[in-house]
Amino acid sequence: MHNSQDFKTAATALCNAGRFIDSKGWVPATSGNFSARLPNGTIAITTSGKHKGCLQVDDIMLIDADANSLDGKKPSAETGLHTSLYKRFPNVHAILHPHSINSILVSKLFVDEIVLEDYELLKALHGITTHETRIVIPIFANDQDIPRLSHVVDDYLDTVTDCYGYIIAGHGLYTWGESIAEALRHLEALDYLFDCELRLHGARKP
Amino acid sequence: MHNSQDFKTAATALCNAGRFIDSKGWVPATSGNFSARLPNGTIAITTSGKHKGCLQVDDIMLIDADANSLDGKKPSAETGLHTSLYKRFPNVHAILHPHSINSILVSKLFVDEIVLEDYELLKALHGITTHETRIVIPIFANDQDIPRLSHVVDDYLDTVTDCYGYIIAGHGLYTWGESIAEALRHLEALDYLFDCELRLHGARKP
Amino acid sequence: MHNSQDFKTAATALCNAGRFIDSKGWVPATSGNFSARLPNGTIAITTSGKHKGCLQVDDIMLIDADANSLDGKKPSAETGLHTSLYKRFPNVHAILHPHSINSILVSKLFVDEIVLEDYELLKALHGITTHETRIVIPIFANDQDIPRLSHVVDDYLDTVTDCYGYIIAGHGLYTWGESIAEALRHLEALDYLFDCELRLHGARKP
Amino acid sequence: MHNSQDFKTAATALCNAGRFIDSKGWVPATSGNFSARLPNGTIAITTSGKHKGCLQVDDIMLIDADANSLDGKKPSAETGLHTSLYKRFPNVHAILHPHSINSILVSKLFVDEIVLEDYELLKALHGITTHETRIVIPIFANDQDIPRLSHVVDDYLDTVTDCYGYIIAGHGLYTWGESIAEALRHLEALDYLFDCELRLHGARKP
Repeated sequence: MHNSQDFKTAATALCNAGRFIDSKGWVPATSGNFSARLPNGTIAITTSGKHKGCLQVDDIMLIDADANSLDGKKPSAETGLHTSLYKRFPNVHAILHPHSINSILVSKLFVDEIVLEDYELLKALHGITTHETRIVIPIFANDQDIPRLSHVVDDYLDTVTDCYGYIIAGHGLYTWGESIAEALRHLEALDYLFDCELRLHGARKP
Repeated sequence: MHNSQDFKTAATALCNAGRFIDSKGWVPATSGNFSARLPNGTIAITTSGKHKGCLQVDDIMLIDADANSLDGKKPSAETGLHTSLYKRFPNVHAILHPHSINSILVSKLFVDEIVLEDYELLKALHGITTHETRIVIPIFANDQDIPRLSHVVDDYLDTVTDCYGYIIAGHGLYTWGESIAEALRHLEALDYLFDCELRLHGARKP
Repeated sequence: MHNSQDFKTAATALCNAGRFIDSKGWVPATSGNFSARLPNGTIAITTSGKHKGCLQVDDIMLIDADANSLDGKKPSAETGLHTSLYKRFPNVHAILHPHSINSILVSKLFVDEIVLEDYELLKALHGITTHETRIVIPIFANDQDIPRLSHVVDDYLDTVTDCYGYIIAGHGLYTWGESIAEALRHLEALDYLFDCELRLHGARKP
Repeated sequence: MHNSQDFKTAATALCNAGRFIDSKGWVPATSGNFSARLPNGTIAITTSGKHKGCLQVDDIMLIDADANSLDGKKPSAETGLHTSLYKRFPNVHAILHPHSINSILVSKLFVDEIVLEDYELLKALHGITTHETRIVIPIFANDQDIPRLSHVVDDYLDTVTDCYGYIIAGHGLYTWGESIAEALRHLEALDYLFDCELRLHGARKP
């Protein structure tokens, strides 16, 4: 199973995504984790401790839908946040979690959520066709207890009809998509929109 | 026609322009579109939905002067803004439309227009020979109704003798030139001048 | 000894570290110096005067634990800061000293020290397992008298149980790790955290 | 003469310098010019109108000490600023003139000059051995009349004993060195120091 073509394709795409994301400076110092759900429901996910800018296929492991390792490698502590999202959203096939400075600053300078509206780039988000749209990215307190944090996320997601990502304060963004390409598009768009909001309303580089 | 050497040359140049523009961070998340007018009056233009940092020749389509597809590919909604500019300016052979954050911030922080003067880099713009020049880049409200937006642009352009580009608020810059190289030079110069103005006169409040 | 495999491995890793660090803009104009302690206790260290973004193995020299040259090359004036740290910390095998602008600004805008807490990226530092951690990076006045500066550093380090790096004001950061990879991880994490703090709490006046 | 090994070596080094300088964003839109004095007193200098990030040896021309073309190519209008510096400073063999945004902002936010002191990176400048040094970079008004501008520069340089560069307001920096490598080192150091001063005392990115 671990040697399937689906796994190899997904793992290679995750490695390439890592190089792209690192080129933006969003995964410093081995931070971040990325995953992709395979057609058979298993999940390819980065192991912890590797720099995401130089991932090799061997740095990607396979887990089942409940976050159990299928290849003997040790999953990252945050794996539960991935599996919980996959269970909630059947169409989601990729999740990206970088640690960009913009997401950190948003979490320190905005309260509970950041609202994004009136930007053409909102149209890069799945299903949005006009800048006259208002989306909310919630901000949750950081917590090393991942099941407890996952519960907070779930409680929030139960109350909304659509969501493109969330920020863990002082930590980073989670975003997702129907494919790795869509999740990357969502990531690029959200970080750009955070940058706009920060420079208009928030912190600026001294 | 689609396989002509002129088309291939222009399409390759547009792909290279995309890589350059993406290296600056100006076309995140599949945003932006670029075009070039061929000697026979047809227009090579990027199809929508592709990341402009990794364009292939196959991501470029051919349209006529009225924005009709000549190769069965579906043109982007904004194609009408390109064809309208080509009809107005017979010497223009390339149009670039990126979504840089600087152009977004200009549109949020300046009202109706941004004035650029007293910069040596103004000389990078066609026909300008001294920094003692004052140019205006108008800012138009964003609109998903492209014919209506195109009309607003046309009304403005009817009133001025020279124009190097315009900004659609919360959206991005349109700029153009007699060649792809000149349009790129105009783009680099305008974004640099926007950056200068933003850092000198832009948002400073906490 | 100079031709040992250990030296060649360390020297190559230092050259690669230099390219990475220069890609971040942290070692402009031949600034910075890097070292690695070999298993036999000798130290591979960059010679002075070379641009750290294009180091060759020949730009790395070998010294003993007391900073004496073992290969006839002339060590940099700051070599004493390296050997002093190696004597203090038996587990440290790599020291990196870049000149990032963030470290300069921290030294000009914060007094005596910068405190870092409540960031997930603190977990990139050796032994830290939760964002609910508070670390201090001390700031020392710059001094061209390296033995005297080293004495100031030593006096400080005698008073603390753990330390991930220090800043010399108007000069740059020293950080270290059990391996070159760990020192690089510490460097990336600390500069990112400095960036966050500067943008949150740094200079905001006109 | 134009085909001499000295010319080819200098021209190749200028092309490489251009790629490095463009990678920093300091020569947008064909701006900037660079030169190197050959052992026989002739000068290799960039022709105008080429993007400095993709220079070829053919984009470098040869002039004599009085700025007369020796190969039929047309020298840039600013060539006189180069030849004037070479006449004044016998040891100078390279001059670099980029248009970085930092130099523009310095010229708009500081009056007449910028003072740099108490930075370790001052030691990257020729002959400086301690951060306890104070240097002045003068700022001159921009002028399209190059002989007149050159006269203003000369009058200033007559009054000082040492000078590492000057800024033309709204235009860019001139800096120089005994070799292309030294001029590049001076450029990297000065732009870094401008960045520090701007972020401490001047404009900041919105």
